[in-house]
Formats: sequence, structure tokens, C-alpha cells
Amino acid sequence: MARHHRTAAILSIGDEITLGQKLDTNSKWLADQLTTLGITVSIKMTVPDDLAALAARFKELAETHDLVLSTGGLGPTADDLTRLALAKAIGDEVVEDAEALSQLLAWFDGVGRKMPEANRVQAMRPQSATCLSNAKGTAPGLHAVVDGADVFCMPGPPREMQPMFERFVVPVLRTDRVVLTRVLPTVGLGESAIADRLGELMD
Amino acid sequence: MARHHRTAAILSIGDEITLGQKLDTNSKWLADQLTTLGITVSIKMTVPDDLAALAARFKELAETHDLVLSTGGLGPTADDLTRLALAKAIGDEVVEDAEALSQLLAWFDGVGRKMPEANRVQAMRPQSATCLSNAKGTAPGLHAVVDGADVFCMPGPPREMQPMFERFVVPVLRTDRVVLTRVLPTVGLGESAIADRLGELMD
Repeated sequence: MARHHRTAAILSIGDEITLGQKLDTNSKWLADQLTTLGITVSIKMTVPDDLAALAARFKELAETHDLVLSTGGLGPTADDLTRLALAKAIGDEVVEDAEALSQLLAWFDGVGRKMPEANRVQAMRPQSATCLSNAKGTAPGLHAVVDGADVFCMPGPPREMQPMFERFVVPVLRTDRVVLTRVLPTVGLGESAIADRLGELMD
Repeated sequence: MARHHRTAAILSIGDEITLGQKLDTNSKWLADQLTTLGITVSIKMTVPDDLAALAARFKELAETHDLVLSTGGLGPTADDLTRLALAKAIGDEVVEDAEALSQLLAWFDGVGRKMPEANRVQAMRPQSATCLSNAKGTAPGLHAVVDGADVFCMPGPPREMQPMFERFVVPVLRTDRVVLTRVLPTVGLGESAIADRLGELMD
């Protein structure tokens, strides 16, 4: 685990975003949360469902940040590649997580359906990763340490991602500073006229 | 100019996005437009107002794509670094564009205000770039060829960016294929049950 979490990268995963079908609201929500916690988001990326590209970006971002948060790509279908991409970035095998599988079975039992065979893949994780249980859906999240960075992979649906962030990510964050931002409401003046009046305060 | 525009990268610029203050809707709009035009968006990035980071990303994205579209960072204040970052990525000096300056003066004249001195910087461009006139605001866009890729920088406000894209970017795009996507409305089944039924069609 990183000694301190000063810088973060946010990685949004999925063709539906790069094709322009879906607006990515997760990365704004996460950036807002991290800023409030005193962590600087120095890049956000969105990558399509492409194994090699995803693995390369996980590695690049982990090498250059203390914290990497991804959303998406944890579903049960062939285009959900986050588990495999993270494993590739680490250089790990993927293994079945017994507890994640029993939680999956229990989840389907709870909604009165038989688990489709396809969902079994959602209990897979890179060997050195841990699964994060999902209170609102079938996709477990993942936590792994990659090149000294904490990498958390969370599902795409906001109602699954947000409680997972609050339950599993926030408690392990270690920060040592706060970021102050100030929104100045203004009326009538253009941005440059305001900048002129603020002068050195702008720095 | 790139021989064909097959792959594109979208770069959203500004602390307001990485701080989580503002939802980036431009990149979704642009991705949707490019997909319809048959161009694959293979990455979207959001970078804060940081000159070195911006210049490095412009260079990386131009080296790996046919087309790079950026939004934001073209305002008149000290944190608007797109002009300088593009110049740094190209290795160009920045110069004042006489026509852009006269359009800026005319714009302020049209709204009955004296141009603040700070806005003069908006008429600057990298030596080898051209300015794109802005019908809806003061920030001219920029077009440059970087490592064989067409790079277009557009302002952040959607009502300025969208007409600039339609007027200056669309007419120069050369594509040779179309991308077909199909949204299948479904009721009741989970994603994996649907995938089971679709079988090979999913590929």
C-alpha cells in the first residue's frame, strides 16, 4: 500500500463511453470526493474494452500515481476485461475467489434466480488481488497493489460504485494535506476583467 | 494533414474537471460525433492546467492517433495554457495572429466593451498553427499538424465548441469506413442472461 495518497488517477472503462453513447459521471463524482479528501487527481482517462490498452494504462497510471481508481468492465460478458487487464498489468494469473463465488450464488439466491454460468467469471481475480463485496449488484470490486500504488477497480453503475468507494476505498486512504478551492460568484464581468481585478490573488 | 482519420483522441483540459467541480459533457458529444463519422475514439483524457503535462499529452496523443481534439484552456487567464502547451509539443514559438486580433477587437466592439488587455493573449498561436474563428465567444480555436496528426484545440463552452467543430473540423475529416452500433432494448433479463441468448452474435 502506498505510504501516502497524494496523487490519483481515474480510469473509466468501456466502449459505451468512448463511442459517446454514455456520459461518464463516475469520474466527476470520484474527482470531487478525492479533492475533498485532499488528494490531487492529475489525470482522468477513458479507455475502450481493449485488453492490451487497458493493461498498459493500468501499469502506466500505477507507476506514476499513489492511487488508481477504475470504474467499469467488471460485468459477466466477454467485453468486460478489467479483471484480465489488471492481472496482465501485475503479471498475475487469475484465480477463482471462493468467497466471491459464494457471495455471487447468495446474491442470485436472494433475488430468486439461478446464477447464469456466465456470471461465474465475476468471482475471478488476479492472484495477488482481493475482492471487494458489492452490496448492490453482482460485480465484486478488486484491490491490488501495483508498483507500490493502490489500485481499486469498481463497477460502472454509480449505485454500486459509490457505496463500494465509501466502504472500501475511503477507510484506507492516508492523506496529509487539504486542498482549498473557492468559487467566487461574479456578475456581469468577463473572465479576463475579473482576472485583472484579482491581480496577484489569481496566483 | 493525416491521410485518413481512422483513430482519434479527445483531450479535455482544466482543473475544474480534475477537481470534480464540473462534469465534462464535451468529450461525450465529440465521441458521439466522431463515431457517427466512422472514426474510432481510442482514448479520452482529462488533464489539469499544467503546462508540462499538457504538452506531453498533446505529443503522445499526436504520435499515436490521426486526429486529436482538445477542449478548454483557451481563455485569457494565466491558467489557460492550451496555446503554450501546443507550441511546446510542436517545438514552436508563439506569435500574434493579426487576423485573430482584429476579430477579437471586433467582437468586443460588437458587445460595446473595451477589450481588456488580458484578452490580447487569445490572439497568440504556435507559429505553424492556424486560428479558427469563434462565432460565439472570444477564444479562437487552433489547428496544427503535430507528428502527422491533425490537432484541433477548441474552447470549453459547448455553445462555442460545437459550432467550431461543425465548421472547421468536420469538413476536413477523411474517413473510409462506418461503425455500426446497435442498441437492443431488453426487459427483465440480466446482462449475462442476454449474452447467453445472443451467443455468437455478441462477437
